[in-house]
Amino acid sequence: MPADYASILADIAERVKQRDFQTARNADYIPALAAVPGDRFAMVIRDVNGAEYSTGDADIPFSIQSVSKVFALVLALRSCGEELWQAVRREPSGSAFNSLILLEQEEGIPRNPFINAGAIRVCDMISSRFANPDRSVAEFLGRLSGNPDIRADNDVYLSEDQHGNRNRAIAYLMKSFEKLDNPVEAVVRTYFKQCAIAMSAREMARATLFLANQGIGIDGNMVLSPAETRRINALMLTCGMYDGVGDFAFSVGIPAKSGVGGAIIGVIPGEFSVCVWSPRLDARGNSAAGIAALEMLIEAIGRSVF
Amino acid sequence: MPADYASILADIAERVKQRDFQTARNADYIPALAAVPGDRFAMVIRDVNGAEYSTGDADIPFSIQSVSKVFALVLALRSCGEELWQAVRREPSGSAFNSLILLEQEEGIPRNPFINAGAIRVCDMISSRFANPDRSVAEFLGRLSGNPDIRADNDVYLSEDQHGNRNRAIAYLMKSFEKLDNPVEAVVRTYFKQCAIAMSAREMARATLFLANQGIGIDGNMVLSPAETRRINALMLTCGMYDGVGDFAFSVGIPAKSGVGGAIIGVIPGEFSVCVWSPRLDARGNSAAGIAALEMLIEAIGRSVF
Amino acid sequence: MPADYASILADIAERVKQRDFQTARNADYIPALAAVPGDRFAMVIRDVNGAEYSTGDADIPFSIQSVSKVFALVLALRSCGEELWQAVRREPSGSAFNSLILLEQEEGIPRNPFINAGAIRVCDMISSRFANPDRSVAEFLGRLSGNPDIRADNDVYLSEDQHGNRNRAIAYLMKSFEKLDNPVEAVVRTYFKQCAIAMSAREMARATLFLANQGIGIDGNMVLSPAETRRINALMLTCGMYDGVGDFAFSVGIPAKSGVGGAIIGVIPGEFSVCVWSPRLDARGNSAAGIAALEMLIEAIGRSVF
Amino acid sequence: MPADYASILADIAERVKQRDFQTARNADYIPALAAVPGDRFAMVIRDVNGAEYSTGDADIPFSIQSVSKVFALVLALRSCGEELWQAVRREPSGSAFNSLILLEQEEGIPRNPFINAGAIRVCDMISSRFANPDRSVAEFLGRLSGNPDIRADNDVYLSEDQHGNRNRAIAYLMKSFEKLDNPVEAVVRTYFKQCAIAMSAREMARATLFLANQGIGIDGNMVLSPAETRRINALMLTCGMYDGVGDFAFSVGIPAKSGVGGAIIGVIPGEFSVCVWSPRLDARGNSAAGIAALEMLIEAIGRSVF
Repeated sequence: MPADYASILADIAERVKQRDFQTARNADYIPALAAVPGDRFAMVIRDVNGAEYSTGDADIPFSIQSVSKVFALVLALRSCGEELWQAVRREPSGSAFNSLILLEQEEGIPRNPFINAGAIRVCDMISSRFANPDRSVAEFLGRLSGNPDIRADNDVYLSEDQHGNRNRAIAYLMKSFEKLDNPVEAVVRTYFKQCAIAMSAREMARATLFLANQGIGIDGNMVLSPAETRRINALMLTCGMYDGVGDFAFSVGIPAKSGVGGAIIGVIPGEFSVCVWSPRLDARGNSAAGIAALEMLIEAIGRSVF
Repeated sequence: MPADYASILADIAERVKQRDFQTARNADYIPALAAVPGDRFAMVIRDVNGAEYSTGDADIPFSIQSVSKVFALVLALRSCGEELWQAVRREPSGSAFNSLILLEQEEGIPRNPFINAGAIRVCDMISSRFANPDRSVAEFLGRLSGNPDIRADNDVYLSEDQHGNRNRAIAYLMKSFEKLDNPVEAVVRTYFKQCAIAMSAREMARATLFLANQGIGIDGNMVLSPAETRRINALMLTCGMYDGVGDFAFSVGIPAKSGVGGAIIGVIPGEFSVCVWSPRLDARGNSAAGIAALEMLIEAIGRSVF
Repeated sequence: MPADYASILADIAERVKQRDFQTARNADYIPALAAVPGDRFAMVIRDVNGAEYSTGDADIPFSIQSVSKVFALVLALRSCGEELWQAVRREPSGSAFNSLILLEQEEGIPRNPFINAGAIRVCDMISSRFANPDRSVAEFLGRLSGNPDIRADNDVYLSEDQHGNRNRAIAYLMKSFEKLDNPVEAVVRTYFKQCAIAMSAREMARATLFLANQGIGIDGNMVLSPAETRRINALMLTCGMYDGVGDFAFSVGIPAKSGVGGAIIGVIPGEFSVCVWSPRLDARGNSAAGIAALEMLIEAIGRSVF
Repeated sequence: MPADYASILADIAERVKQRDFQTARNADYIPALAAVPGDRFAMVIRDVNGAEYSTGDADIPFSIQSVSKVFALVLALRSCGEELWQAVRREPSGSAFNSLILLEQEEGIPRNPFINAGAIRVCDMISSRFANPDRSVAEFLGRLSGNPDIRADNDVYLSEDQHGNRNRAIAYLMKSFEKLDNPVEAVVRTYFKQCAIAMSAREMARATLFLANQGIGIDGNMVLSPAETRRINALMLTCGMYDGVGDFAFSVGIPAKSGVGGAIIGVIPGEFSVCVWSPRLDARGNSAAGIAALEMLIEAIGRSVF
């Protein structure tokens, strides 16, 4: 018997509203993220049969930030194939998402595609293969979500660019190891553009569906093969939640990717994709209400991937 | 329709025999492990309905080594409950299983229970709670596997003890941070004893079944609750394969734990437990033939947890 | 014209008395160090012509702690010669005196003989070459200072032993790299014994004189060759003041070695040795009043080694 | 009786010629350094009384590279005073000159002014205080050496710029911690320009004299106060020789600074300045023949600062 997702979501929204996430804070390194009302909350489930369930601010766009790393990776994989894994490894880093320490020790080869170094390297590959690299991830998300109007928010992009020196340091360090093919400024521009993409939770749940559906997107087209789809899910589970990967696998137990805009996407393979969004972040940079909501969902349906 | 595990296993055994794992080597830090014939191979599947499938040297005992860490953790959890997670974290370490670097930086709190520091701290908890800590993990494995005669191999134990200075360094470092309750020598003795336990692949697949069966062991008794069982599986997936966690999740995609004796245990929740054993190790300390065999299994059945 | 050391010392003592070292604290990891009155102060200069100048508590014994590392090194060097430098390097560590991080990265070879790992390795060499290693450094200091009664304080030794787990971790880590010849417990006992030696500032200034006098001790005997003496001074300057080496060279500018008992020894080669003692330590573990007094001394005489 | 420096230098030149520095290599990261004949050798002593002694290629200009860091520091100190030490620390780093690891851990504050991060921060200060920062160090060296024509070699500068991504990574990392006042490209340009300055060993010995002469330059003007001069010497001794600081202090024992162009400057305070140049580098990036020559010099005169 399928779960009654509609009432589960309604219940979660109610319980989240009653909980206090006072110690959690919006990301504040750029004004556009700091300015979002902290009590926004949205949760959308899209199941593999096409049904969609939502609660809260499901159609308000937010800055997808690091959630974009999943889709940039998929886009690059479709273009580069296995060769991509010569350039980026697939191991948890055990350290902060923007650290240069391992990157120096491991001579410019990023640990995985979801830390900044890895995502920048993925942008570098996209830069080499697409005519308009700065728009390619947005256009890909447009196709996946069914909304061709998806694009980067220019104010957010300009802020990212202005506060992007850590990412430039990462890119120049890779460049110094001759591990970046394109000019640093071009690559980080592509990276900042993809981080600045604005989407709603509904659009995001739709765009994520293929990861729950053996690689088939909402329009019935194959985005990735089933085997490649499983691999992306594996990567999200081992590397997707900053340095809270282990705790999230432990307490929720599904492949997921978070962003500092407050979004988390996740899947139960064979069943559904989910996007939850609430801008206040815990100490690790994951949406506090988002993690709580996913824990409630897993508890309600009584299963995870484990 | 259930997979035909018998013929899948036969086919895997045949293909493994034809492959060359020449660069792989037995662990050689102690003579007892170096002496095992390198071409031994066993694979046993136990499904949640009680059926068992095996191939190769399924009844030859081997040294379980780090595979014991899973069962020591479960034993400690049953006794300590959630309090255990005050003492040991649940995050991938991103570094070698026997490194002291993170342990010093994080002031004696181990990253997870499957690196040596974490496993030693788990032994410390067992030492505080069991009358015969040195035998408690063996006895627990005896109950789980249905063979009460399971115990540590004394020669292996003596060798572990003799080559155990790195583990003593780890234990004294925790002790210096006041993060170890019992005397170092007592705790490492318990640890060396559990590493030295000898079991066959068949016994190991049986002992592991509860992790595939919502916590229910082969005798029908509950070993852990379903929620706790999912958590152990999550920990194995994020931390169980030394510094090859990400690659293993990527290429195989099931919760698993390996040991330098050449064993790997794994589960597909709701379906089966599996134990594969072959003593030659790859550069990361995981059984080379074992990983290849698990990849073949996942390919044959067309699914992982992802 | 020689400086008027007597009046310089009197002036320093007066100025130190008026200064406030409130944020500085006695070492408190063992009771015997915590219990010493915090306002004790002694300073003794011994010049190469045999004249001696002192102020304050110059004849009250204190725990020499890490100052012993200089004399243990000299004793080992006299016995092993250049071979010693195969086992211990001569570079500043850039990290804490008791850190295991570099020691693991550099596979058990200590950075220099004045961090704990290096000093323990020196004790290991002494253990291999002297009949009574636990007494050998005390006896050596007895000869150098002219007081044959110098020995370890047994209470301090017992406390060191009890709080010595970090040093045991260091020793076991070296042992695991096969970089320690003798049993860990024997080596750390020798180490704890030498740290527990009690001496007065006067005795210490006398024992240190050979480092200012081209290797000639107070009794006219050669302790080290002139070239070897210069090398020990170089080591003290680059590695003698914990992680305050650079600041001390910058603000004082003489070869020196400090201990958490509050003593600092130093030399101006060709001129004099000095010992200052005051138990309250700054954040880096160096005597706060001791460093201030040495700065005043250098300012008063208008020269350092630079 | 003063040493007969003329015959000492002649003897050193002869002995260096007979020694084999085959494993040593020119720096090859830029063509202009790789192209210098590897057997070039020059050594110049300038004493505090104005006498000058030289041997070899004493008037052939070379790329001063990191030797410039000393003079940039002195220039910045004269302008900023003690405030400079709020921005740059004075401790040996214990790690490679171009590492970002400590810089990240210590949040953008460089360990000392002689690692690249520290030198770049010094350039940043120069950029804020001088009208023509890119020329200011060259002009300063022109005044100190008495040759107003000293300037950067443009080919070397262009090469530095082209291979300067590691330094850009360092600068952007400091920028991300808000520890760099000026734009990254402007600061690294100033830095590359100073590294590319070309001077002869004779000019360099002259420019260095003030460090041996209580701050008084060859023209009799005060460059730094005696106390500040001692401090620069202290910094060179503890931080001047890349990660060979301890070994150099041990085997030579004078304040010195090396560059990958093959130059080493040094002083015996109160006596003389010395510049030795030979382009082949040892594994640590110091001139192999240069270190050997300085060891011979110290042995010949029988004293160091120790």
